[in-house]
Amino acid sequence: LDIENKESENSLEGYRGLARELLDKSKVKIGQRVIVDADDEFRVEGLLIPRYEHADEEHIVLKLKSGYNIGIDVKKIGSLSRTGKGHPVKEDNIPESPKIRVFTRSAAKVLLMSTGGTIASRIDYRTGAVHPALSAEDLRSAIPELESIASIEPEVVFSTYSENISPSHWQSLSERIVSRSKERFSGFVIMIGTDTLAYVSAALSFSMIGLSQPVICVGSQRSSDRPSSDSALNLKAAVLVAARFARSGVYVAMHANENDDDIAIHFGTRVRKNHTSRRDAFRSIDSDYAALVRGQEIVINDQQNGDASLKPSDDFKLKTKFERSVSLIKFHPGFDSRVLDFLLREGKVKGIIIEGTGLGHVSHNIISSINGLISEGVFVGMTSQCIWGHVDLNVYDTGRDLIRAGVVPLGNLFGETAFAKLSWVLGNFQPEKWPAIMQESIIGEQTARLFVK
Amino acid sequence: LDIENKESENSLEGYRGLARELLDKSKVKIGQRVIVDADDEFRVEGLLIPRYEHADEEHIVLKLKSGYNIGIDVKKIGSLSRTGKGHPVKEDNIPESPKIRVFTRSAAKVLLMSTGGTIASRIDYRTGAVHPALSAEDLRSAIPELESIASIEPEVVFSTYSENISPSHWQSLSERIVSRSKERFSGFVIMIGTDTLAYVSAALSFSMIGLSQPVICVGSQRSSDRPSSDSALNLKAAVLVAARFARSGVYVAMHANENDDDIAIHFGTRVRKNHTSRRDAFRSIDSDYAALVRGQEIVINDQQNGDASLKPSDDFKLKTKFERSVSLIKFHPGFDSRVLDFLLREGKVKGIIIEGTGLGHVSHNIISSINGLISEGVFVGMTSQCIWGHVDLNVYDTGRDLIRAGVVPLGNLFGETAFAKLSWVLGNFQPEKWPAIMQESIIGEQTARLFVK
Repeated sequence: LDIENKESENSLEGYRGLARELLDKSKVKIGQRVIVDADDEFRVEGLLIPRYEHADEEHIVLKLKSGYNIGIDVKKIGSLSRTGKGHPVKEDNIPESPKIRVFTRSAAKVLLMSTGGTIASRIDYRTGAVHPALSAEDLRSAIPELESIASIEPEVVFSTYSENISPSHWQSLSERIVSRSKERFSGFVIMIGTDTLAYVSAALSFSMIGLSQPVICVGSQRSSDRPSSDSALNLKAAVLVAARFARSGVYVAMHANENDDDIAIHFGTRVRKNHTSRRDAFRSIDSDYAALVRGQEIVINDQQNGDASLKPSDDFKLKTKFERSVSLIKFHPGFDSRVLDFLLREGKVKGIIIEGTGLGHVSHNIISSINGLISEGVFVGMTSQCIWGHVDLNVYDTGRDLIRAGVVPLGNLFGETAFAKLSWVLGNFQPEKWPAIMQESIIGEQTARLFVK
Repeated sequence: LDIENKESENSLEGYRGLARELLDKSKVKIGQRVIVDADDEFRVEGLLIPRYEHADEEHIVLKLKSGYNIGIDVKKIGSLSRTGKGHPVKEDNIPESPKIRVFTRSAAKVLLMSTGGTIASRIDYRTGAVHPALSAEDLRSAIPELESIASIEPEVVFSTYSENISPSHWQSLSERIVSRSKERFSGFVIMIGTDTLAYVSAALSFSMIGLSQPVICVGSQRSSDRPSSDSALNLKAAVLVAARFARSGVYVAMHANENDDDIAIHFGTRVRKNHTSRRDAFRSIDSDYAALVRGQEIVINDQQNGDASLKPSDDFKLKTKFERSVSLIKFHPGFDSRVLDFLLREGKVKGIIIEGTGLGHVSHNIISSINGLISEGVFVGMTSQCIWGHVDLNVYDTGRDLIRAGVVPLGNLFGETAFAKLSWVLGNFQPEKWPAIMQESIIGEQTARLFVK
């Protein structure tokens, strides 16, 4: 067990306060096998494992023989000692079920869905590489504070790095949430890799229209067993919002800055991963946060893009299909127009989002290929690779040529959200409705013109 | 002449101070044809046109019959009156050549190259649309203050919106600069559309290695005849830097914020258009500015990515070719791997930059197509669609699979700069050198790791 070899060097990494005092007093180290008698409730044997940098000071965490981790409140611990030094534990005293909720204090019930990604990964200490390894249950039990926020039910939906998550996964995830929404959950937390987290949050923002509970997507930029991991704080904030947020909608919970104080709750359609590695990589684009989580407090932003007033009609509710034949194309100087011809002829594409330059432009020599796509019924929508700001096809000749060809300008949707929305629109509506729905702001996905023209 | 109809409504738009006093006293309005006797030097007849919001208060601007604009210092004006009211001007008194430099005060000589774009455009008042119309000479004479900064020689290289500028244009522009660099210019200013300005500045940063004068690319977000135009301030800053900057290199001069005080001088390889319409749309990525221009002052930033110490070898100097068969691909969920097969088979592509997710990932199902490309000798480089931050292919399984396939990680080059650099590298060097040169920081295009891992 490589975790044992490695972490025995680290003495009591991550333990502070009450928990540290107890461990010091008991002369046990990380990686040692220990026996705990807790509050006359149970006796348990396991491997002492490190705590997260931002974990509380009142729990120690043991890895059980079953492979599960369990958090134990130090105030309830009667005795703690190394195995072999104290009385041996009977096998049948070891809690084998992960269902034990030792310190639940909240009535709110949250479904903690795991899909893989860094938040559910650990480092391979031999290679330094990160592998998906932890289940929702592992995380739940490794962060016992979660249980003081809500009653957690873990579910592994699938387990993959998010770069492999495709529109098919968006659909199965949506269907799974709809199916479990009949149970009495206050909200849903989706643990997911950060690589395509913003695509997923945008996709689910549309497929979950009409769901009464909030859905919080959460990831982490550093794996859970690294000292600088952001997973515990992000996850606690996500569970808090899922348990207590009175609003529906799909949100993303990630660090608001590089400190460990505020967690931003981004609107699912207005968020983007803007840095490869920073813990505050996720940023709201042309939009404020929906809320900030600071400790146990949710600070709601009432200037919410005006979307609170939007009431999507029943036509839009719980439509969970996503069309697969959709492309996202970033235009570049010297772009080979034959790629568009290929997507039409061989790719059988039904819709394309183009990230044009500036206000939404492409070079004049590819407009005839765009004409070809549109005349075959392909939807072509225009966004900007600038990311921030609105497209406007009425200012320059190029824009007017594109309008004439039938290209649909998509306001200030950036490429990722436009792509997710188009996949949803094409999956659920008839072609004659595509342009209108793509331009409509159904759930506040278009924000006001924030600039002076 | 639509400009005449429209602007006659605007009385004396843009004129303030001394110039306004003279016009008020002389009872002439914008759009009227006037005759000026100036300082016994010449008599000239023309149409009074509006001034830019940020123009000085000491010149009036006339559009001559020849089509050129001319700025006249009000302190030198002896008399000013409407045509027909005063003595008629003789045709041969109208300066027909744009070469007259009435108020040159500086010895520095700057080549002002025009390529088109908003900075060289004007509004069609009938439609509200913007057309490329102004030449470098028009702008030079419409902004007479330029002449107090440097002696300006205008040259129209080509005239197109920058979305139409391709790597072939990069090459012809580079060759033109090299050819004119034998004359005694202090520096070069390239007026260009903003849509692909950052691609061009990156491309020229490589093709101009070894040029001793600075090259300043400048654009504007609002056309020159709009009250909120940024063109005059950006252009004045660009000319100032071209005239006085002691460093070589390629830079971009654009508004640093939404006020009209500071103009940012960005490194050509580290700048990106990050907003469709704001005047401060251009931002330095993972980098500070090279300098700021405030009024007549150039505030040099000495913390310059360490590039000052870089001395590119002669191998890199003035290589002005660009390969055309290069693609920039943004990966997205559900990406159709057949696009890569098509680029190899039909597109005859020689190099591809992929904007992967996060640290530089793609879904596992397209790795075999990437293998196919690389085994046929195609260069495949990895950047991140996050834009900020470094790629790292050693952290996750996906990254290691890509390394194994022969994908070259490109540090913190973002897509646009990576694409421009690859077009240059493939145009000028042998295949065996491609990976090393693409990963090397030749002119500071790779910046330090700014984040704590």
